[in-house]
Amino acid sequence: MELYFTCPENIAGGYAKFDAFESTHILNTMRNKTGDLIHFTDGEGRLYSGHITETRPLLKAQSKLIKQLPWPPRSLSILGIGFIRPSRLDYMIEKSTELGINKFYLFASQHTNYYTENSNRWEKIARQAIKQSNQLYLPEIIILPSFLSFLEAVSSIKNKFMAEQIASNPLADILRTIKHKDENIVFLIGPEGGFEKKEIEMAEKDGFLAVSFCENRLRTETAAISAASYINLIRN
Amino acid sequence: MELYFTCPENIAGGYAKFDAFESTHILNTMRNKTGDLIHFTDGEGRLYSGHITETRPLLKAQSKLIKQLPWPPRSLSILGIGFIRPSRLDYMIEKSTELGINKFYLFASQHTNYYTENSNRWEKIARQAIKQSNQLYLPEIIILPSFLSFLEAVSSIKNKFMAEQIASNPLADILRTIKHKDENIVFLIGPEGGFEKKEIEMAEKDGFLAVSFCENRLRTETAAISAASYINLIRN
Repeated sequence: MELYFTCPENIAGGYAKFDAFESTHILNTMRNKTGDLIHFTDGEGRLYSGHITETRPLLKAQSKLIKQLPWPPRSLSILGIGFIRPSRLDYMIEKSTELGINKFYLFASQHTNYYTENSNRWEKIARQAIKQSNQLYLPEIIILPSFLSFLEAVSSIKNKFMAEQIASNPLADILRTIKHKDENIVFLIGPEGGFEKKEIEMAEKDGFLAVSFCENRLRTETAAISAASYINLIRN
Repeated sequence: MELYFTCPENIAGGYAKFDAFESTHILNTMRNKTGDLIHFTDGEGRLYSGHITETRPLLKAQSKLIKQLPWPPRSLSILGIGFIRPSRLDYMIEKSTELGINKFYLFASQHTNYYTENSNRWEKIARQAIKQSNQLYLPEIIILPSFLSFLEAVSSIKNKFMAEQIASNPLADILRTIKHKDENIVFLIGPEGGFEKKEIEMAEKDGFLAVSFCENRLRTETAAISAASYINLIRN
């Protein structure tokens, strides 16, 4: 099944409208035409189907609700990550969304050398990723002013992990003993230069468990994609 | 420590030569000059250090062996993967190498729509990745003529897994019970369209265990990077 996307506010009265980007995808790339049946999500857990009724200027289709997951999602899979080079950040969002991350916190920490505010671009990447991977939740991507504000944002979450190459706890041992299907889970990923000692102490004081993934020095986005993969293990 | 690379045949008589790509990296990007101490690997498990003695036309440095891991590596972490879009293949090689994959088999299977032979480019990507992640083994990247020849190439390996979205074994359950620090491990990743039923049967007959990573439909390269992450868990 090919899945498409439109915002919740574009669905009303039994019909859905699609923006220019999505209309082009459905009509030009996927070669649909008036009368064809398509499936789409609003990114808030709902799956719709409907026949295309109009193609110009933008696509319009019937909307019949055929599946509804809880909204907000029953559990959050969260990545907290310092800013990295924009092309690598894009890729991290694409891959981690495919793997089921539904919330990203981006922030500047001591060793962060980049800063970009590109919410439109990121949302477009995340949209493509949920369509590709057949998911009904569009992740939230939130920019925070500081590392401290990230710690505050996740303070109520119990399952908190921090990726650190030199951490003494191998993640493997922890994953062998835990299983949290429906709980919120957050992984904090360090910037390229690693965290400051003080930042590590603050995170540990706030309940983060420092874990190492492997002996290799991983790029930030690689560690993030690994963390997203590991969250899937914790949930299974 | 910044790690550089030169081929084993460029190291002899207490000196190492570097090719144009590496010389540029060391001198222009990293701003080293004559007399500076650098560290480098030959990709076969050896770590050297030495002072730069010449910079033109290409870089030359002393070579003092300071660490030697077994060659060939004690255990292989292998990915078998059908050809995918070249840009995605590049990325898969970069990320999986960072995560410790030391052998790639690339082949065309039933649902493969791409084919590229770009060994020079891939080697360059893998080189950058081992330098970045501080590893002393350069992965082998081997093109095979068919899916069958892949099965033959890995026939003697005991730990064989095949990523399949609809497989009935969640990988999580398996990872909780196994630990293979020094054994060879191979993950087979399907092409975008999935494997043919017959291919799955052949692989299972050859000892591959079909496992699912998560419910989402993953792109081939995403599943590959997840598999590389999971191999690190099996080894820890």
